[in-house]
Amino acid sequence: MTSPALPFPLLQALVGDEEMAAFFSNEAELAAMLQTEAALAEAEAEIGLIAEEAAYRIAQACRAFQPDWNALAKGLAQDGVVVPELVKQLRAAVGEPHASAVHLGATSQDIVDTGLVLRLKGATALLLQRVEALVLTFHELKRRDGATPLMAHTRMQQALPFTAADKIDTWIGPLDRHGETLREIAPRLLSLQLGGPIGTRRELKGHGDAVADAMADRLDLGYAPSWHSQRDRIGEFASWLSLLSGTLGKIGQDIALMAQNEVGEVRLASGGGSPAMPHKSNPVPAEVLVTLARFNAGLLGTLHQALVHENERSGAAWTLEWMVLPQMVVAAGAGLNHAHALLQSLTFQPSSAR
Amino acid sequence: MTSPALPFPLLQALVGDEEMAAFFSNEAELAAMLQTEAALAEAEAEIGLIAEEAAYRIAQACRAFQPDWNALAKGLAQDGVVVPELVKQLRAAVGEPHASAVHLGATSQDIVDTGLVLRLKGATALLLQRVEALVLTFHELKRRDGATPLMAHTRMQQALPFTAADKIDTWIGPLDRHGETLREIAPRLLSLQLGGPIGTRRELKGHGDAVADAMADRLDLGYAPSWHSQRDRIGEFASWLSLLSGTLGKIGQDIALMAQNEVGEVRLASGGGSPAMPHKSNPVPAEVLVTLARFNAGLLGTLHQALVHENERSGAAWTLEWMVLPQMVVAAGAGLNHAHALLQSLTFQPSSAR
Amino acid sequence: MTSPALPFPLLQALVGDEEMAAFFSNEAELAAMLQTEAALAEAEAEIGLIAEEAAYRIAQACRAFQPDWNALAKGLAQDGVVVPELVKQLRAAVGEPHASAVHLGATSQDIVDTGLVLRLKGATALLLQRVEALVLTFHELKRRDGATPLMAHTRMQQALPFTAADKIDTWIGPLDRHGETLREIAPRLLSLQLGGPIGTRRELKGHGDAVADAMADRLDLGYAPSWHSQRDRIGEFASWLSLLSGTLGKIGQDIALMAQNEVGEVRLASGGGSPAMPHKSNPVPAEVLVTLARFNAGLLGTLHQALVHENERSGAAWTLEWMVLPQMVVAAGAGLNHAHALLQSLTFQPSSAR
Amino acid sequence: MTSPALPFPLLQALVGDEEMAAFFSNEAELAAMLQTEAALAEAEAEIGLIAEEAAYRIAQACRAFQPDWNALAKGLAQDGVVVPELVKQLRAAVGEPHASAVHLGATSQDIVDTGLVLRLKGATALLLQRVEALVLTFHELKRRDGATPLMAHTRMQQALPFTAADKIDTWIGPLDRHGETLREIAPRLLSLQLGGPIGTRRELKGHGDAVADAMADRLDLGYAPSWHSQRDRIGEFASWLSLLSGTLGKIGQDIALMAQNEVGEVRLASGGGSPAMPHKSNPVPAEVLVTLARFNAGLLGTLHQALVHENERSGAAWTLEWMVLPQMVVAAGAGLNHAHALLQSLTFQPSSAR
Repeated sequence: MTSPALPFPLLQALVGDEEMAAFFSNEAELAAMLQTEAALAEAEAEIGLIAEEAAYRIAQACRAFQPDWNALAKGLAQDGVVVPELVKQLRAAVGEPHASAVHLGATSQDIVDTGLVLRLKGATALLLQRVEALVLTFHELKRRDGATPLMAHTRMQQALPFTAADKIDTWIGPLDRHGETLREIAPRLLSLQLGGPIGTRRELKGHGDAVADAMADRLDLGYAPSWHSQRDRIGEFASWLSLLSGTLGKIGQDIALMAQNEVGEVRLASGGGSPAMPHKSNPVPAEVLVTLARFNAGLLGTLHQALVHENERSGAAWTLEWMVLPQMVVAAGAGLNHAHALLQSLTFQPSSAR
Repeated sequence: MTSPALPFPLLQALVGDEEMAAFFSNEAELAAMLQTEAALAEAEAEIGLIAEEAAYRIAQACRAFQPDWNALAKGLAQDGVVVPELVKQLRAAVGEPHASAVHLGATSQDIVDTGLVLRLKGATALLLQRVEALVLTFHELKRRDGATPLMAHTRMQQALPFTAADKIDTWIGPLDRHGETLREIAPRLLSLQLGGPIGTRRELKGHGDAVADAMADRLDLGYAPSWHSQRDRIGEFASWLSLLSGTLGKIGQDIALMAQNEVGEVRLASGGGSPAMPHKSNPVPAEVLVTLARFNAGLLGTLHQALVHENERSGAAWTLEWMVLPQMVVAAGAGLNHAHALLQSLTFQPSSAR
Repeated sequence: MTSPALPFPLLQALVGDEEMAAFFSNEAELAAMLQTEAALAEAEAEIGLIAEEAAYRIAQACRAFQPDWNALAKGLAQDGVVVPELVKQLRAAVGEPHASAVHLGATSQDIVDTGLVLRLKGATALLLQRVEALVLTFHELKRRDGATPLMAHTRMQQALPFTAADKIDTWIGPLDRHGETLREIAPRLLSLQLGGPIGTRRELKGHGDAVADAMADRLDLGYAPSWHSQRDRIGEFASWLSLLSGTLGKIGQDIALMAQNEVGEVRLASGGGSPAMPHKSNPVPAEVLVTLARFNAGLLGTLHQALVHENERSGAAWTLEWMVLPQMVVAAGAGLNHAHALLQSLTFQPSSAR
Repeated sequence: MTSPALPFPLLQALVGDEEMAAFFSNEAELAAMLQTEAALAEAEAEIGLIAEEAAYRIAQACRAFQPDWNALAKGLAQDGVVVPELVKQLRAAVGEPHASAVHLGATSQDIVDTGLVLRLKGATALLLQRVEALVLTFHELKRRDGATPLMAHTRMQQALPFTAADKIDTWIGPLDRHGETLREIAPRLLSLQLGGPIGTRRELKGHGDAVADAMADRLDLGYAPSWHSQRDRIGEFASWLSLLSGTLGKIGQDIALMAQNEVGEVRLASGGGSPAMPHKSNPVPAEVLVTLARFNAGLLGTLHQALVHENERSGAAWTLEWMVLPQMVVAAGAGLNHAHALLQSLTFQPSSAR
């Protein structure tokens, strides 16, 4: 009966999303930062700021890099950002004579922010794919159960009869829009950050824009002027996450209300159980959608506090983003998974009120 | 020396915006709802659902309408929405035989939501105009003071020298994007709401879409299927407001830091005074920008709670929007005004740290 | 049928509380600040810092004061706080030779914060009185309807039978505690603020504590060392407001769920109506309780941002409190009124599920 | 140079608190739930509801329990709460004939909520101990550096001279109060939850209060009537956490401002570094205090949304607490650690502005 402890907090089994969380693992963060350092070196070699050989060695070292995790943790605690210690380790791995070509003209924020964007690229693609799949599932459900007669409810009271198709349409509308807006937002969001210590690219001796351009190409990111003290793109994406979670929360709330024994307009194949009351079938995924909506709404209000990012780099505001944004992405992803599973298990039942 | 009491809370002199608040006055709300009722009647006459004469009388009554405000307030308190009482008064004003043609096939939410959108049309146009004017002012400031040598600061410490132009560029970037995104958002936001009691337009006997189309034309709004239980557009606009306030808050925080006596990188022509310390010149508008950013960030998190809009109409969620959204628009507008005034009074001073 | 426009935003008819809002009117704020200036002068005369005659004239001028409201508004907009202009007007009203004895050794924040506390004294007393009255009403309801058989619901599903008395007990519990904790919090909250320009009372030449003591006596407030940059008491009271609103929101949500047509465990004598669906009886006050709970929860998160009150006075953080706290008090008060009215109109109905 | 990956998210090295997080590990949660089940059985044996032998076997099984973690995770995902699967495993471990005596008359929420309270007992004791230690450290700092002349700042401008002792006093005041209020709150918070499926204790056949009393004794918790749908104590404790974090955030913000190169009123022995700008010494712990304050303020607004806990158990609201409260405790704890370390490294420097 025994088994080793879980490698994650137990609660994640209910509100987490392993696939989405993987973008925010220590390993994924490190890999994205190394990818950024390698692209920087290669771009600088392309422009002629460092030797081809140096770029080759740096890229190689990035691929083979074995971090001293404990030292990285200590470095982060000391410097407030992990990059100084990472650069130190990476320079040691590169060795002489090319150590000094590592991280040339860049600053910690370039590496962390671009590393974040690289992972958000994967996360947004996955979110979009799931949103679109969910819309399809709703359309299937509509085809199958759309004619089922239901009772509409306004202000928590019976209003007039309508059909499951009518109801489902109100769920699909915002999801369709979320797909569209993510396509609008993504190109702005998925932009390279390269600015150097104070965001001016001056350390790249007149070649800053060219290096940035080459880096963006190599990383398949959009080109943008340095934006590290301008957090509106992050805030905009967070808003999108909360809008999505809110839409799913509305769907969850609707289903929980329709699944009430007294209402009985949906049946859930597999609700949660209760040892004390074996007759119950709890609409757990529907409830969790409400939870995740309220969670992300609140986190959004918190993350937007970080828009007040003072001067050329705010340790306080930046760290707040780190604490909040990954949670929001995971909660949004978890909501999509729950919504999908919920739809699979759901059958509309004709309203007895008609 | 005496004068009558102010017609607004004193605090609004500091954090308010009279022009923006006008969109949310009782009178403006009533006017927008009457405009909606008139357009509904005219559209229904156009489609043939009611007589031309009825539409004419209704439009006329809407124009000449004299509300019984106290009865409207009582109606709102009783019904949770003002429209039932408004329709009653409007029907009395229209008189027989056309009274029953008033509000035909519509529901309270159609009138309130479309009435809101009509006012947001004005508000978004004004916001956009001010954002663009602010960007121009920043460009002028850059032309005038851009060469001033400043010291960049990261993590609240001196970093490296740069110029006022470099600094101003970091302020213009997000403002430019806010202008662009408002242009993206506005067409989605400024959409007619017409759904009838449960959002299906069934009460319009097969002519619902045609009526909606004609109404949208008359009101110069976008056409959309009924969206009253789908609050993502409202949530998206609120996000925009908070992003704008956040950008302005970052600018305000930067200026407050640069205006410190010990730093002295900006001089403000007219700061706030203190009777106890006449030597002081307080950067009041800069501080207020920070206040408004934190206010709108928090309100955004609150408004997104209203995305969980259960069933075909949630009294609880809808009322929450009413309490929050107007405040956010006014705070965003006030921020733009303060930012504009702040720039007018600001001169960059060469950093003594270089 | 006509009547003059309302002197308040229409929405206040639904979510406002005239009695509570009165503590935050321009007039009430001015009166409290004048009361503070008068008490300061009298305390200073008592200690011998100013002449008895000066204190007498100042107190007299405070009683008879006719403000130039427009100038006050301009002063607030200019200085970020109304007191400099108020002191100027008050000194003019006092006239020579005692004008300079006005506001001696005090700072704007002393007047504004003490003026706030004076009004919170009234507000907390009213809140406490209403909480206690509401508890009594619940006990009456329990006596009358307690034996009614109901069905308990967990996770939105029928669980097991219980009674109205069981249900009501879960509502009374937190209300009882809110009464108790307000009695704990009030003495901390209702403390005089006197600190002078930087909170040290040095301008009172060694008599600061004595003046503060005498002022506290005269104003019937608690004595405390200067606390103007320590906003924990404000934050603690705001938490209390949100806890109260949350408790009422839970009650409102319960009642809205029980009032569903399909459940029918409560009947509301007078719900809100709908012209399109005259058969409906909407549980408007129950919904509003949910709204107010979510509103105050969100505002609490916003107000606590103002705990980061930098240095000896933060214009940014202080102004944020001004924007948020009054709304929270009014929302809490409105909730108590709605809860009271809701209970008056409510009858429990035997559950048909048993 | 290599080392195995970290067993925690890297960011925790900066914003985490290992000691505090331990109260919320999977193992700690399981242990507290087992302790609750054992105490329940022993209390029931004491009252005579189950056999002494059964209680003995259950307590023994709880001590020796080896969970199937994967099954627990699956159970949580299925049922929305881990207890049904835990009880199943525990019954298997107890074996016949006493399996059915496990969890008798209790419900999942009794086990989870009491299990939470048991851990909060440890957490609050640790928080109190650290608050008191921090106050002592401030007093030491005051003794050492109190006479250092500083410049007070109001509204981000130089105001008047004062001393380090004056400044430190403004930091100690709220910390002293936080200590006091935690002593007030703790007895309310640290109360047993026992209610059975719907909170009435009816399943304990008239002995519910006696069982609860005996359980509270054994667990050294306060006795209280069933409170599981009344979340005010949780909300009150969360408020306390945010108030504490806010106080620390204010201190951090003050220190970051005083540590500016241009101000130079504090020197930090060991700030964070930057490879691009080796001359810098960043006030990392001070910034993190600001971050944690804003984080907990936002989370408080989110957690208070869970006060709207509908009916006899809200899956949606309860799960929201699970996602938010542990983070708040850890952030509060991390803030205390950072504040302590910051004070150790800090020396006040005479203001050059005097």
